[in-house]
Amino acid sequence: MLDVILAGTGGMMPLPNRFLTSLFVEIEGRAILIDCGEGTQVALKRVDCKLSRIKMLLITHFHADHISGLPGLLLSLGNAGKTDSLIIAGPRGLRRIVESLTVICPGLPFALDIRELDTREPSSFDWTDGENHANTPHFTITSLPMRHRIPCLGYFLELKRPPVFNPEKAKNLDIPLKFYRVLHSGTSVTLDDGRVITTEMVTDGSRKPVKISYCTDSAPFASIADFAYESDLFVCEGMYADDAMRDSMEDKRHMLFSDAARLAKQANVKELWLTHFSPAEINPKAGLQSVRRIFENTVIPTDGYHKELIKQGG
Amino acid sequence: MLDVILAGTGGMMPLPNRFLTSLFVEIEGRAILIDCGEGTQVALKRVDCKLSRIKMLLITHFHADHISGLPGLLLSLGNAGKTDSLIIAGPRGLRRIVESLTVICPGLPFALDIRELDTREPSSFDWTDGENHANTPHFTITSLPMRHRIPCLGYFLELKRPPVFNPEKAKNLDIPLKFYRVLHSGTSVTLDDGRVITTEMVTDGSRKPVKISYCTDSAPFASIADFAYESDLFVCEGMYADDAMRDSMEDKRHMLFSDAARLAKQANVKELWLTHFSPAEINPKAGLQSVRRIFENTVIPTDGYHKELIKQGG
Repeated sequence: MLDVILAGTGGMMPLPNRFLTSLFVEIEGRAILIDCGEGTQVALKRVDCKLSRIKMLLITHFHADHISGLPGLLLSLGNAGKTDSLIIAGPRGLRRIVESLTVICPGLPFALDIRELDTREPSSFDWTDGENHANTPHFTITSLPMRHRIPCLGYFLELKRPPVFNPEKAKNLDIPLKFYRVLHSGTSVTLDDGRVITTEMVTDGSRKPVKISYCTDSAPFASIADFAYESDLFVCEGMYADDAMRDSMEDKRHMLFSDAARLAKQANVKELWLTHFSPAEINPKAGLQSVRRIFENTVIPTDGYHKELIKQGG
Repeated sequence: MLDVILAGTGGMMPLPNRFLTSLFVEIEGRAILIDCGEGTQVALKRVDCKLSRIKMLLITHFHADHISGLPGLLLSLGNAGKTDSLIIAGPRGLRRIVESLTVICPGLPFALDIRELDTREPSSFDWTDGENHANTPHFTITSLPMRHRIPCLGYFLELKRPPVFNPEKAKNLDIPLKFYRVLHSGTSVTLDDGRVITTEMVTDGSRKPVKISYCTDSAPFASIADFAYESDLFVCEGMYADDAMRDSMEDKRHMLFSDAARLAKQANVKELWLTHFSPAEINPKAGLQSVRRIFENTVIPTDGYHKELIKQGG
């Protein structure tokens, strides 16, 4: 099961009825959180996301609405009993920012594994949690420098999907049933007759990874569509529905709903979720019809909107 | 009008249904805020407290639940158009903490006037905003070192009340009506016949100051009652209603409801508001009957509880 929850949908400042934008991506009891503004820990609790499952935090940039919730989140992780280290990845300069903000939460009961990412060129790293066997979720995380007022990264998460066990193939190889479970889990076995059976012999080959793209804050530019190409889910900022805000958005290096929809179309993604609405955008859903003329499968979510990208057992 | 709003009532961490403890004290369009944890700016907006009126922020101590909302508050003050300086007072070390936290909000459009207060001895300072004439609110703010795990200050706010204009006295002195308004505002006048009339000649003398005491986080000790003596309002922490939590509270240097109530009784205050409830204290109001046996005029507030300590025109 791969569950994706958009805990908040706001930009700039938290509001009584709108938390700041952050995305919780959970698979097999492990979660990646992208961004953590003031109140994100509350937004997560409100929709029952288990803080203790967060293994990695990705920070897009150091504007307060994307990182000011860090000290509170770290303290709450400690209170929730976390002792294994937390990866925090973000733009160059991250270590200094984290050290500054955590001056009010000394003595955390877990280590911070801080990873500063390139802010001039795209970069990638692989991540898995614990034992690296076939059933452990395995992500490739790519960062792309955005075009914002300060260094900022978009993130593209690809979840590798283990090949599907095919009992027909196992049967054709006369493999006793008692070995199915081990083979299913991705481990080779030696049969009683001495034959070595590898996973590849009893599976249907690799499946296309599940891809989640997350881009905020940025002016629109073509590479976003390249990197988000054929995403299963594209979470993208849209500050305003009204195209009359074009000049202001260009100045501030942000996007309109229509910018995000055009990128979604170019990228041929399956689904677009708009987020990071301006506090002045009182009713973002009013822009839905217009934006769907550009890209049909657009969602204008409210806080806590979620979707199972892979169903239970899938 | 002196309005006091307890924006949040929680301790330790913000919850979906409970903001962190902070107190908004407003008079004549000027406000003092005490403490600012994660989400306090939202708690204030939710109950319609105007952020732009905040002239001074008092910080009790540097645990995250009392200060982590600072960067977000400062940015929102800037967005609300603030340009005059903001006083931030708190324990020694405040400057370093503020500088650390504001690494994510550089370039604020107003200055921070940081005042580090003594953490070993009580201290006092006077505060008024703008012109120091009779109708400008004038506070004396006293800080008392609390007994917590880190240096922490309790705050005692005394609002001086200007003497009341007495039209009978003015009439007896044959002062023409046209001078009443100026005399009422606290300014002396020279009559057409040459006599100089001072405010003292037409007022009823000084009134007792209004006193608000705010004590969290601390183990209970007698000096709190001395400093809070005869407060109009005593806002005091109470983490748990259940006296069985005594040992834990002594370890952590916090109070039970009953501790706060005993202090309120010793201090002979008019009214006690409990606050800073533990996240594990799901229904603080269940403790009301029991705590009122110790101090009758106890309130167990929910977020946004407020009272006009001086009515409009008072």
